[in-house]
Amino acid sequence: MDTLFDRHRGLIDAARAALRTRGFWAPFSEIPSGKIYGETAKDDGLAAFQGRLDAPFLIPHHPETSRVGAEISPWGPELGVTYPAADADTLVAASLAAADAWAATTPEQRVGICCEILVRLNRMSFEMANAVMHTTGQAFAMAFQAGGPHAQDRGLEAVAVAYDEMTSTPREAVWEKPQGKAAPLVIEKHWRVVPRGVGLVIGCQTFPTWNSYPGLFADLATGNTVIVKPHPGAILPLALTVAVAREVLTEQGLPRDVVLLAADRPGAEITKDLVRNPAVTIVDYTGSNAFGDWVRANAGDAQVFTEEAGVNSVVIAATDRFEAMCANLAFSLSLYSGQMCTAPQDIFIPKDGIDTDLGHKSFDEVGQGIAAAIDALLGDPARAAGVCGAIANPATLARVRDARSLGRVVRDSGPLEGARSATPLLVAVDATRTQAHEEERFGPIAFLVAVSDADEGVARAAGLARRKGAITAALYDTDEARIGRAVDAFARAGVNLSVNLTGNIFVNQSAAFSDFHVTGANPAGNASLTDSAFVANRFRLAMWRRPKAA
Amino acid sequence: MDTLFDRHRGLIDAARAALRTRGFWAPFSEIPSGKIYGETAKDDGLAAFQGRLDAPFLIPHHPETSRVGAEISPWGPELGVTYPAADADTLVAASLAAADAWAATTPEQRVGICCEILVRLNRMSFEMANAVMHTTGQAFAMAFQAGGPHAQDRGLEAVAVAYDEMTSTPREAVWEKPQGKAAPLVIEKHWRVVPRGVGLVIGCQTFPTWNSYPGLFADLATGNTVIVKPHPGAILPLALTVAVAREVLTEQGLPRDVVLLAADRPGAEITKDLVRNPAVTIVDYTGSNAFGDWVRANAGDAQVFTEEAGVNSVVIAATDRFEAMCANLAFSLSLYSGQMCTAPQDIFIPKDGIDTDLGHKSFDEVGQGIAAAIDALLGDPARAAGVCGAIANPATLARVRDARSLGRVVRDSGPLEGARSATPLLVAVDATRTQAHEEERFGPIAFLVAVSDADEGVARAAGLARRKGAITAALYDTDEARIGRAVDAFARAGVNLSVNLTGNIFVNQSAAFSDFHVTGANPAGNASLTDSAFVANRFRLAMWRRPKAA
Repeated sequence: MDTLFDRHRGLIDAARAALRTRGFWAPFSEIPSGKIYGETAKDDGLAAFQGRLDAPFLIPHHPETSRVGAEISPWGPELGVTYPAADADTLVAASLAAADAWAATTPEQRVGICCEILVRLNRMSFEMANAVMHTTGQAFAMAFQAGGPHAQDRGLEAVAVAYDEMTSTPREAVWEKPQGKAAPLVIEKHWRVVPRGVGLVIGCQTFPTWNSYPGLFADLATGNTVIVKPHPGAILPLALTVAVAREVLTEQGLPRDVVLLAADRPGAEITKDLVRNPAVTIVDYTGSNAFGDWVRANAGDAQVFTEEAGVNSVVIAATDRFEAMCANLAFSLSLYSGQMCTAPQDIFIPKDGIDTDLGHKSFDEVGQGIAAAIDALLGDPARAAGVCGAIANPATLARVRDARSLGRVVRDSGPLEGARSATPLLVAVDATRTQAHEEERFGPIAFLVAVSDADEGVARAAGLARRKGAITAALYDTDEARIGRAVDAFARAGVNLSVNLTGNIFVNQSAAFSDFHVTGANPAGNASLTDSAFVANRFRLAMWRRPKAA
Repeated sequence: MDTLFDRHRGLIDAARAALRTRGFWAPFSEIPSGKIYGETAKDDGLAAFQGRLDAPFLIPHHPETSRVGAEISPWGPELGVTYPAADADTLVAASLAAADAWAATTPEQRVGICCEILVRLNRMSFEMANAVMHTTGQAFAMAFQAGGPHAQDRGLEAVAVAYDEMTSTPREAVWEKPQGKAAPLVIEKHWRVVPRGVGLVIGCQTFPTWNSYPGLFADLATGNTVIVKPHPGAILPLALTVAVAREVLTEQGLPRDVVLLAADRPGAEITKDLVRNPAVTIVDYTGSNAFGDWVRANAGDAQVFTEEAGVNSVVIAATDRFEAMCANLAFSLSLYSGQMCTAPQDIFIPKDGIDTDLGHKSFDEVGQGIAAAIDALLGDPARAAGVCGAIANPATLARVRDARSLGRVVRDSGPLEGARSATPLLVAVDATRTQAHEEERFGPIAFLVAVSDADEGVARAAGLARRKGAITAALYDTDEARIGRAVDAFARAGVNLSVNLTGNIFVNQSAAFSDFHVTGANPAGNASLTDSAFVANRFRLAMWRRPKAA
């Protein structure tokens, strides 16, 4: 039964080593190339995706009392896919029925199975890219990377942390206590991993796999069964995932229902029933703060891990690469139309302007520089579509419309061809108009916030992170002492800070095996992907001991 | 500033190594010997304790709006000690005022300070023994061990786990991502530990130091400030602890209020105010399930770690050392009059008896064997007092009285000379009379529960652990297959199992650096002393990153 572990041993060992060094390491290639994935992979993936459309999605032997599914691609068409569905009690009962057999497996069996699932998902990355693209509105390249290899990397990272945690205590020990001149007391001790129970993973629409895989694979590796609850608008990527997991489990002679899909209808979600079920002892949630509040308050004694939302800030104090800075920010604001939890919303700029390599730039000139960089980035329609993608939720368009009245429009948002879309809106406000920029306004909406100086900008940004949450922060500065103060301020606010990013690296990006995503130390989430706190509490150790035979 | 870390480096390194091997390791000697602690240590400790009596306990510069203190020794006298007291808001404000300076220290500074506190507490072990004895009712030898070195071992264990967790991620890394033929992206990354905030440690009366030190030292080592809330009946041991901690902090130029005492009056406890305060982000609680329910439900988003209560079981299936088994159980039932969270309550015995080295023994003969062993153990009054100690809470005596009517009394409880005391009561019941033995009955009360066979006993004991919680379980058996089934059953119930203990090792005992205390996997508690889950969620990591200079 340990053959999958043996097969993937090299992957696991390399992953564990990467956790320790936290340099660049990406086991699943992000390059959608035929040389890596096979010359026909792109066409095969598209064909596989198209074959799913307008048809029931079959998951053999999955609990099913009805069929649901109403996904509409933000790029246009209805998917027409239906999924097996059942109520919360039915799903939990099926999960519990699978629990004992799964709990009885060894850590190595489970880690091997998790790796096999991930490797098979990797082979399907082109099909997954289409599924993610047409549920989230991401452009193809981003859907491939974030929905495929980057999500798989995050899943493997969780497996590696789990394996570290499960093996940090030996499985056996001999305890020998001296008794003066008498013979010592000698006790043999044996430990085993005991899972918490049933895990519930609540996915979001914008990153259905990337945000779900850490919890899913952390649960599985530590012996918990899992119910995967997708957003009703983005079921397909997680249905594909669940189907692959069940296929591997079945091949290994284990109950398929270790992994279940909880598909439901928009407006008739079963999420609350699942969260309130006392057998659900772990909840991983990605979504709004409002529903996050509800989950944390209603999950009872379940361990809850959340990524919610916040207001991410940039502080521009000074730069010696003005144009590169503007280009970098333009990309961060445009990428997937600001629908990333890591996208900046508030850009704090001294009202008297900043020093740059191109001379002093006034507040307005900085704003114009960013606006011009966005225009340049999005000038070519094909590139613009590839960067911005489509808008996942129509409510985001309404939010963009309403945001225009919150201050002075520096760059207006407009649609792109061929999709429900909106380019970044830039609105200038004064820092004291907090009702404008201190609310999270999800989507391609950014505020240029005038502050008296850079230190006030840092103080306001860090304070906002403490109060409302933040997942990222960025700073542009040339003064090392002021950078040091900002590092301290953002760290105490529990937000990861990027300094002076230019070129091909962006504040939005969080790389598995190196960056921890979300800190858990401000209201943007109570957990971090993937630290040991994210994994260690998903299982317990039970011991038995007896006097050791002579 | 790192000199304390350097001074205690050997201790820390040895502690971390012990965590990995989990054999016997005890850094602080449990032997109350003049050769180890100094020839005058015993007398000096007694004198120091006596010097505390009938006087205000002074904690320099501690917030103080009133004085409280009404401790009465279970051995007789009122202590007459008063402690500085303040309301919850005052204490939390003082704790928050100390937070930034403490959070700014390095892990090494904090670990060094924690070790220094523990080493100084160790030197005071005789004074602490008297303080613990006269608040808990433990006999002197146990008060010395459990209140002194064993508690210090548990504190150091938490520090070692915390240091492991804080250093498992490097503080700096270089992330270098290849870019095909272009120059790689090179980013330097820096991580720092960010504490959660204010920790609240809620102590119990019976083990004021042993049960509090893990949470206290885990909080401190990870950069949180701590408010220590003693049971109103056992303030002195934790007041001594807080005073030592503040002394070391002051010497290191750090705010004393990093550690605060929340002394209060019986009937006017401030515990609820502290738990509900939103600035309190970690709660460590030892006590009843009823108040544990309240804490878990009312702590908001604080991370809560509990040791509550359960019903511990013994299953006697067979033995090849009948007399040694009875003697071992007699000690486990008598030690500190059953006032240990690890003491057995229910002894499941097949109604048709068991096979032993002394021939077949009927149900009654097994009960009589245990009763006779208790009588033999407690036949000498001095030894009896030394084993049983005194009864901490008068309600326990009432519970013993009432328990007599729950079944057939096989051995009656009686007082010992010189203290409020009660020897073990043994009551025989049938397994179907669940209202008798399935309720937790804290104190020297045990049930001999008749079951049809050993497998039923294991099933009932494990089921009881799942439903009501259990911290320990014991099994006596000679059939390896049946032992294997019991190991599985108790592990799935999340309870640590001891098999065939005889001689000088008891089911009640839990050794730091080897045994995890409580699993967290059944209602007897949601946490385990001290696994990584107990520590990892007390801090977060914050990063800053920037392009690496060429």
